[in-house]
Amino acid sequence: MATQPLIRSDHLFDTVELSKWELEQIMERAAFWEKNWRPGQAPFAGRFAANLFFEPSTRTRFSFEIAEKKLGLHVLNVNMEESSTTKGESLCDTVKTLSALGVEVVTVRHREPEAIQELLTEDTGCKIINAGAGKMAHPTQALLDLYTMKKHFGSLSGLKVAMIGDIKHSRVVRSNCWALGKFGVQVIFSGPESMRDHELEKIASYLPFEEAIREADVVMMLRVQLERHHEQLFVSAGEYFKNYGLSIERFQTMKPDAIIMHPGPVNRNVEISDELVEHPRSKIFAQKTNGVFIRMAVLERALGGVQR
Amino acid sequence: MATQPLIRSDHLFDTVELSKWELEQIMERAAFWEKNWRPGQAPFAGRFAANLFFEPSTRTRFSFEIAEKKLGLHVLNVNMEESSTTKGESLCDTVKTLSALGVEVVTVRHREPEAIQELLTEDTGCKIINAGAGKMAHPTQALLDLYTMKKHFGSLSGLKVAMIGDIKHSRVVRSNCWALGKFGVQVIFSGPESMRDHELEKIASYLPFEEAIREADVVMMLRVQLERHHEQLFVSAGEYFKNYGLSIERFQTMKPDAIIMHPGPVNRNVEISDELVEHPRSKIFAQKTNGVFIRMAVLERALGGVQR
Amino acid sequence: MATQPLIRSDHLFDTVELSKWELEQIMERAAFWEKNWRPGQAPFAGRFAANLFFEPSTRTRFSFEIAEKKLGLHVLNVNMEESSTTKGESLCDTVKTLSALGVEVVTVRHREPEAIQELLTEDTGCKIINAGAGKMAHPTQALLDLYTMKKHFGSLSGLKVAMIGDIKHSRVVRSNCWALGKFGVQVIFSGPESMRDHELEKIASYLPFEEAIREADVVMMLRVQLERHHEQLFVSAGEYFKNYGLSIERFQTMKPDAIIMHPGPVNRNVEISDELVEHPRSKIFAQKTNGVFIRMAVLERALGGVQR
Repeated sequence: MATQPLIRSDHLFDTVELSKWELEQIMERAAFWEKNWRPGQAPFAGRFAANLFFEPSTRTRFSFEIAEKKLGLHVLNVNMEESSTTKGESLCDTVKTLSALGVEVVTVRHREPEAIQELLTEDTGCKIINAGAGKMAHPTQALLDLYTMKKHFGSLSGLKVAMIGDIKHSRVVRSNCWALGKFGVQVIFSGPESMRDHELEKIASYLPFEEAIREADVVMMLRVQLERHHEQLFVSAGEYFKNYGLSIERFQTMKPDAIIMHPGPVNRNVEISDELVEHPRSKIFAQKTNGVFIRMAVLERALGGVQR
Repeated sequence: MATQPLIRSDHLFDTVELSKWELEQIMERAAFWEKNWRPGQAPFAGRFAANLFFEPSTRTRFSFEIAEKKLGLHVLNVNMEESSTTKGESLCDTVKTLSALGVEVVTVRHREPEAIQELLTEDTGCKIINAGAGKMAHPTQALLDLYTMKKHFGSLSGLKVAMIGDIKHSRVVRSNCWALGKFGVQVIFSGPESMRDHELEKIASYLPFEEAIREADVVMMLRVQLERHHEQLFVSAGEYFKNYGLSIERFQTMKPDAIIMHPGPVNRNVEISDELVEHPRSKIFAQKTNGVFIRMAVLERALGGVQR
Repeated sequence: MATQPLIRSDHLFDTVELSKWELEQIMERAAFWEKNWRPGQAPFAGRFAANLFFEPSTRTRFSFEIAEKKLGLHVLNVNMEESSTTKGESLCDTVKTLSALGVEVVTVRHREPEAIQELLTEDTGCKIINAGAGKMAHPTQALLDLYTMKKHFGSLSGLKVAMIGDIKHSRVVRSNCWALGKFGVQVIFSGPESMRDHELEKIASYLPFEEAIREADVVMMLRVQLERHHEQLFVSAGEYFKNYGLSIERFQTMKPDAIIMHPGPVNRNVEISDELVEHPRSKIFAQKTNGVFIRMAVLERALGGVQR
């Protein structure tokens, strides 16, 4: 199993800190696990990972938990509510405690990026993997997106990726921009005026929706936070779909080999027409499947590789 | 381990859809696991099950979790609260996501039977096992009840089973009726007038309590939902016990080889006298033990058997 | 692995019921696991433990969960909220149910010591390990404290242990006193007048703070329950640190080889100066590491030892 070279053991906070070579290494290891992993294999058997989620998440936590268990790791799940941080202990001390108990790698999701960043600068004894930091960074999502594109197109070079929707509040957009940038991929934004991010438009072009989807090889629809409706970022779900949803008609204007992506969970008939979610050219469920292999690779990297 | 014939791989929503032969097959496999399973065995090692419980349950979830772990399955537990369904995602999309992540079998408990039924009609990619659907169906409870009766009496044929209490709101009663019916078992109901179900009495006879327990080979006491007290289905716990509880005196009028059953959790001295719960002729704790083996068999069936 | 003699299989409620020989046995087995356990070992593979926590706890539950998983046990975690005890079932019946499902050992944390004690007197079918009983007993904490002292000093005999702070409400103090007493260790108390326990002072001497830390080989700072502030046990966190916190200045008055301990979680700069928490002479994180091995030994004892 261990014929690949050892990858560097380290934290992962965002894609911006990874070189193109490191991004490629992680995708290569993901491909290795996708090809070679079989039930019963447990290359890191008997070692411990913990998932510290301070925001609710089914998809991402389960993806990490499955990746961990496929590697043979024992898994501890910590919910914000039950954590001693509510007893006044700092997050750093919680992670140091986990380290003292024998945990080697910790995934963390937190509303405040600084809370996660602090864990990387202090010597907690654990390797830290960012599983979603506020509006700032979601590196494993970006990695699985790149992996999904690369699997489909063979290579990332020359691609145009259009991200549609709430650019301003999306950690997925940010981590994807940094990662795609290393491969020279051209990024296009589109979406409501109220959700634009003028700072980020320095590295991407903003286009009208119809134009964006005509140009792109990848149309990445972003999740609308319906729960933020009261912030008046948009009028209604129906109105949003009419203006910025991927309808069948708009889908037909896409390039013939262009693919649809979405980080999930999807609001059907808000961001995207119900019938397109499982269309052959939609990679939405493939993204989830790929995410497990990417997370196996990222965990393996944190643990110093399988060769010991 | 794999000397038994392969049983059919499928969903399980209710006993009504199982043939007598299938019910027997599941009980045979339960007996196989009861006889042969030893710590360390893990015939489905490295594969994934998820338990989606939208109603609280310790007993049933743990029974499934233990069955899953005895088979070597990795287990994901989802509580309603933390699920993305709260983010507007449908239950179907949650299960499709679990499938994309690598989960093969999902147990579901839900207040609304339709929510579970929808999962069986859509192609989610997962096998679905109903772990309790509203007032409608609880097939693994019925299967473990039949298995418990069969172990005690050797055969189900010719038995009379009396179900006492809240017939109207019991999913246990329904699933038991369909299953027992396939074996020609005679079902007797008794209990408060307000808890009768006249529709269901088409397939069972309603008798006064004293008469029901004199006739029966199996006296199945049903759980009183004390939390529903305000619905005025009964006056008080004490009053209920006086009228419909299995007291020592009433127990002495039972046939000498008749057994006591109860789906649990028991309200001691409400449905049944404290001293009878662990009486040699009570199968209440044996039911729980048998439930693990039945669930192993049902999971094995969903996964397509151990021969692969 | 099984070269050690079999230790007695039993419950654990408090250190007071353990002989000096039994305390030594448990510490010897902890040392055995610390020295010999390697990832992949699973001496109790496929057997089941459950953790029943009726009070929130990250540290202790994870310590038990890791110990259980290192032994190869399958682990069920029960939160008070989701337990059927909320449906009117007694704790005893919950544990009997777990036993019927196949669980062999149960750790319990509960606000009311009587709730745990009842489990030891009834025949539930499970071995019970007290993981924290109100203000009364926390035996595995005491055991890990003794183990930590013994590792540092080689022997417990002749030591002086000062416990500083909320003596009155501390289960850690009580279980430590009974255990240390069996080894003839001299115990010193200090702390605010409002937190003294005159009954307990029959077996320990109360000294002014400055004197206590000058005399002691072990300075055990107790956690301040900041959440009990409204009970007016102390004025403020700052005031508490000024009067009873271990500052750098006070640390310098300690014996040159004396060590600092704290059961955690630490309130930095309340009980102890921030810089001292990870000082080479602080054993605070070592205590956590040692706790896993102590709990492996206690679980092994409950399960009847590794030789079967």
